[in-house]
Amino acid sequence: MKSTPTHFPRIKMLQLNGFARRRLLAWSPTHVKSEEAELCPHRCGQCCRPPSNQPSPTKATSIAEVLCLTVFFGRLVHFAKVTPQMVFWKDTKNICIMVTIVLTLIDLIIYGSLEAVYIHSVRWSRPLRPVFLINFSESRQIRRAFRSIRNTLPDILYVFLLFLFSVLIFSLMALKLFGDRGLRTAEGASYFTNILETAFELYVLVTTANSPDVMMPAYNFNWWYSLYFITYIIINTYIFMSVFLAVVYNNYRKHLKNEIRKLAYLKRHKMIEAFNILKVKVGTEFMVKEATWKRLVKVVAPDISSSHLELLLRISDEGQKGHVDKTNFLRLADLLNIQVVTINIKRHPLEAWVPRVYQSSASLLIKKMVRHRIFIWVYDVIILINAIFIALDEKNPFISYAEWLFLSLYVIEILLKLYTYEPRAYFGRKQFWNWFDMLIILAALVATVANATIQSARKYNSQQILDIVLILRILRLLRVIVSIQRFRVIVTTLINIGPTMLTFGGLVFVVYYAFAVIGMEAFHGKVQFFDPNFTTSDALVCGNPALKGSAFARDRYCKNNFNDLASSFIVLMELTVVNQWHVLADGFALVTHQAAKLYFILFHIVVVILIVNIFVAFILEAFFVAYSLEKSELETAIEKKIQELGVGIQEDDVQGGKLTDNVDAKDSGFSGDDGDNKRKALKGLYCRIASKKYRTVDALLQRMFESEIGPDEEGPSLDEILNFSPNDIYPKNPNFENSA
Amino acid sequence: MKSTPTHFPRIKMLQLNGFARRRLLAWSPTHVKSEEAELCPHRCGQCCRPPSNQPSPTKATSIAEVLCLTVFFGRLVHFAKVTPQMVFWKDTKNICIMVTIVLTLIDLIIYGSLEAVYIHSVRWSRPLRPVFLINFSESRQIRRAFRSIRNTLPDILYVFLLFLFSVLIFSLMALKLFGDRGLRTAEGASYFTNILETAFELYVLVTTANSPDVMMPAYNFNWWYSLYFITYIIINTYIFMSVFLAVVYNNYRKHLKNEIRKLAYLKRHKMIEAFNILKVKVGTEFMVKEATWKRLVKVVAPDISSSHLELLLRISDEGQKGHVDKTNFLRLADLLNIQVVTINIKRHPLEAWVPRVYQSSASLLIKKMVRHRIFIWVYDVIILINAIFIALDEKNPFISYAEWLFLSLYVIEILLKLYTYEPRAYFGRKQFWNWFDMLIILAALVATVANATIQSARKYNSQQILDIVLILRILRLLRVIVSIQRFRVIVTTLINIGPTMLTFGGLVFVVYYAFAVIGMEAFHGKVQFFDPNFTTSDALVCGNPALKGSAFARDRYCKNNFNDLASSFIVLMELTVVNQWHVLADGFALVTHQAAKLYFILFHIVVVILIVNIFVAFILEAFFVAYSLEKSELETAIEKKIQELGVGIQEDDVQGGKLTDNVDAKDSGFSGDDGDNKRKALKGLYCRIASKKYRTVDALLQRMFESEIGPDEEGPSLDEILNFSPNDIYPKNPNFENSA
Repeated sequence: MKSTPTHFPRIKMLQLNGFARRRLLAWSPTHVKSEEAELCPHRCGQCCRPPSNQPSPTKATSIAEVLCLTVFFGRLVHFAKVTPQMVFWKDTKNICIMVTIVLTLIDLIIYGSLEAVYIHSVRWSRPLRPVFLINFSESRQIRRAFRSIRNTLPDILYVFLLFLFSVLIFSLMALKLFGDRGLRTAEGASYFTNILETAFELYVLVTTANSPDVMMPAYNFNWWYSLYFITYIIINTYIFMSVFLAVVYNNYRKHLKNEIRKLAYLKRHKMIEAFNILKVKVGTEFMVKEATWKRLVKVVAPDISSSHLELLLRISDEGQKGHVDKTNFLRLADLLNIQVVTINIKRHPLEAWVPRVYQSSASLLIKKMVRHRIFIWVYDVIILINAIFIALDEKNPFISYAEWLFLSLYVIEILLKLYTYEPRAYFGRKQFWNWFDMLIILAALVATVANATIQSARKYNSQQILDIVLILRILRLLRVIVSIQRFRVIVTTLINIGPTMLTFGGLVFVVYYAFAVIGMEAFHGKVQFFDPNFTTSDALVCGNPALKGSAFARDRYCKNNFNDLASSFIVLMELTVVNQWHVLADGFALVTHQAAKLYFILFHIVVVILIVNIFVAFILEAFFVAYSLEKSELETAIEKKIQELGVGIQEDDVQGGKLTDNVDAKDSGFSGDDGDNKRKALKGLYCRIASKKYRTVDALLQRMFESEIGPDEEGPSLDEILNFSPNDIYPKNPNFENSA
Repeated sequence: MKSTPTHFPRIKMLQLNGFARRRLLAWSPTHVKSEEAELCPHRCGQCCRPPSNQPSPTKATSIAEVLCLTVFFGRLVHFAKVTPQMVFWKDTKNICIMVTIVLTLIDLIIYGSLEAVYIHSVRWSRPLRPVFLINFSESRQIRRAFRSIRNTLPDILYVFLLFLFSVLIFSLMALKLFGDRGLRTAEGASYFTNILETAFELYVLVTTANSPDVMMPAYNFNWWYSLYFITYIIINTYIFMSVFLAVVYNNYRKHLKNEIRKLAYLKRHKMIEAFNILKVKVGTEFMVKEATWKRLVKVVAPDISSSHLELLLRISDEGQKGHVDKTNFLRLADLLNIQVVTINIKRHPLEAWVPRVYQSSASLLIKKMVRHRIFIWVYDVIILINAIFIALDEKNPFISYAEWLFLSLYVIEILLKLYTYEPRAYFGRKQFWNWFDMLIILAALVATVANATIQSARKYNSQQILDIVLILRILRLLRVIVSIQRFRVIVTTLINIGPTMLTFGGLVFVVYYAFAVIGMEAFHGKVQFFDPNFTTSDALVCGNPALKGSAFARDRYCKNNFNDLASSFIVLMELTVVNQWHVLADGFALVTHQAAKLYFILFHIVVVILIVNIFVAFILEAFFVAYSLEKSELETAIEKKIQELGVGIQEDDVQGGKLTDNVDAKDSGFSGDDGDNKRKALKGLYCRIASKKYRTVDALLQRMFESEIGPDEEGPSLDEILNFSPNDIYPKNPNFENSA
């Protein structure tokens, strides 16, 4: 994602809010909508604020919006010029953007003209705004996620209908079994007397949000009725929800595989095309000459080092005959994708500047000490003691002095490490954990010093800075992860799938934005937040008498409202977490209409049943790929060649000895440097394959699929590739494919 | 599962309860425990009931228990006699049973002797009872599930530790950020002031059970603090919980595959052994003679029909040379596993009895009508109208008469169908949906008639029968599923995985039982249930003043107690559903000690994090297997042979024409019979392969794996097979395997 599209709606929102604030000052009662006007007599003056149901754009914001639209349109025109017309018009995203621009313009014009004659209307095009965000060519991942959702819909529809049918059957039963008993809930409300309310209650039970409460009256009445609820939960909550996950996951996997397969075949196709252009006949076979090959690599990867180039050539031209054959040529793209790190083993700068001191026995002892396991353990113990000190009361001056002690201990640790290890190697590009360690300590140091300065200068505690210092101080404890090998591996896996997880951030943002805009249209200003200390009767019902006695008011949810975008997002987040969502839904239904519950049910279906399941599917898939991953054939080939050429870093001279430690320790900077002395005797240049850590899930999947394509297989034609359908993967089972 | 072991603990429980009731009558105050005695002065006399913390066994129950133990011991001795000693002692389950018997005996003796001198002790061996249930040779599936859990533990441990570490770090932050603010929750309690309470609250937040409530005070205080909670939920609820599912699922799959592989190779091994015994040299190759082969099949499958045998022989001995070669011999077990249904197409009995009437034009018209699509549609409409009538108030006499109308309409439908289709074919063994339809209607009919009889005879509504009639009346609506093809397919898939789902029933029962026994030891009698209409102050606090003002009492959870096994199971079910579990935990912590929360946390970890995830993993896997299933090679071979021999039922003469309809319709009884007339011209005997519906997931998996073993592959040796480890499947990635 580029920063431009991401920030667009946020900037928009701030502008609108700024505008809303201005309108608040120059408010005129002409705009009060009938509904608001009705409520006003019952409320205090404070509530009769402007019906900023949505801040209506004046010229300023309208101009800003038109400008934005122009920019998008310009971008589109530019894009149309550089791409062939056929491709441009076939691309759904261009058409999407075009339609959205036109619709937004129409909306702006209608709204503007209605506003000019003082008729208040709704800016219905606002939920369309995320379309711009999705359809930028940079947000390919988000589009894929949306495609995945769209493709899942037909498959999930019938399961969903069956699920609804089951909920309805159970609702009928509940109505018949419990409706006439005159039972009351703990809050004294009637119990299963209305079919619509019963269906809603039971839908909420599927999400488990009202789990024992909805059962208690019937259970208190008769033991046996609990069986009804247990059956309901097993069927609808456990089985149906798992089936939803299964359907979503299966679809996700199917479509992912299809796209990956498309990409893999496309690459193969292009490589064969390239080969056909460059080939010359040598003997009976077609080959590419070494010089051509080298020129090609230099064009494709201009900043490749000559030693890396030489290494790749040796692999591609096994017999050193001056030609690269077809099989090896096709591997070129993959070879270039494998990061080979060339390391210049340099001496420590201090050794160059003050060799006598650096090589003295005291210095050697220090270095030996720092390299020892016990050094790490001692610091682990220090971190633990620090954790206990943090948990203690910091008002005690002794403890606040201890804070400085701990900070200085950590700084000494970093200095000792820099003294022992070569700084450029220690902070190499891939030494994630060293950077992590360093940054945490530095940040805590800076924050603590800043806080102390402000405190002594002004005798005043800045709340924000104090909070940040507190958080940084506690985050320092994360250093424990660095020293426990297995934790590091888990965190590394999670960090690996991080970038793709951000895709879901984008996806969730888009859906949240659309729902937030609709929510703001429907519920803006209906619920007001008052300061918690303000306990008038009005504050207790969130400024709306309709909420009197409701669970919404009792639980003090007044701040969960749709009055601005930020609050809306937080409400939507709470709805995503599911718990108590029925209280929120009930609250907003009370202040508007019972039909408002549909908004919340729809949100649950879209976000919890679809998007959260896709997220879970994604994490599962990412973990499975990581689990089943082995070194690829190519990587093995490269490593073999590196060893043959004698420029490899020997990885088995680490102290730990266990293979598990090794594999990860490669990048950690702690262990890899233990072999310093041995390597000093060798040449200055070493190569090794960068660790698997920083690969994306996409790349992993692509490689997994490629292993299924035979090396000589030409693959299908370009048209066939572009029209691959996910159903080709399992084509022979129409029964399940079409239905479940 | 056999009925004996399943019923054992239940019978036990009833005995104990009966005993408890008897003790209640002959209660003597000598047994009041100090704790109970302490509470008594504060309570009303009613609460001072006997300390039936657990009903202490007298001679009667002890003798029953000893008898049971003797039976188990006898069974074990018998088992030891029939199995070789080596195998017997290698089998963990025998040793388990033996150890449990000894432990139970020791416990009985200690308890008995202490009880004899009036010292009250704890029957600590009771949670061990499910061991008997698990270790019966019949409950192989439950053992596998337990093995799966045991194998998952080491893998999940480090993820769990990292998760706990994360919760602790966040707890420290919460303590520092919110502890000193003097914030109060909606209930007026202090907010994040104690590290243990904070950690518990945040653990509850992971389960989402206190989702917006725990955030509200901080959020009301300052908007920015919501970011803390959002970060927490994303990391701990979404990411960590998904990782748990991934780890559990991956392990489940790995071990399942390993077991299946073991079975597949074992089968291959045995078949080769059998071949080597039976083989004779024919020409250059070893073969099995036709006569030997036939005798073997008759020994293995005594009730095989001769036509089926002939069919198999034709497939195995392709060239009809009188010999079966090795490849074909090895397939024998699989061939026998494929159910071939031989159908005798008979004439309708009425046609035999009254051919003139049955073949009359009026009769033909009726049959044509019944077979028509519209007939089904009409009845779908009738069902829908019925649903509306059910939802209406049944007090209205018109509606209660309509009930009889609907019932008679359904009976007419069944009679018409029996008139049109051949009854023995219509209610064939595999005609699940016809049976389903018939049973629903019959049950409703019987229940309604019974109800009417009782009502008219006694002028009294029996509540139980009325409830059953109501439920049956509503269940009749399920008939809609029968007529919607896609619903039927989904339900069929769910029914397919049903038997294995029962395994989870067993697994959950065992874990619930162990937890229930511990819960009854710890919390028995602490919480009392009073009739809902009984509103003394005592009833409002569930008979325990410690609960005053707690959410537990306010939500009227008094019936959620551990006073008997059934109640305990329902509490545990509520804990499994997760919502409000913290209210239950808090309640029981209030009446005992804060440490009681550990019990509830442990239950959450074991049941929700482990078992529910295994359940989800199982459903996912079952669906994926069902999705990716194709007809096996062997089935295709059999079908081909059936067609060649001209005894096949033609499956494409169904009206619908679409393949998707066909595949399922085979068994439905509606469509398969449309070809009646055509087939009448053919011979009386037809074969077809039974539909895939009734296969177990195990069988599917086994077949999937078998397709990976080459037909000529001998497989590893018996010892190697028995020592297969799941890690052999992905052996080359020690990094991920050992850690995450």
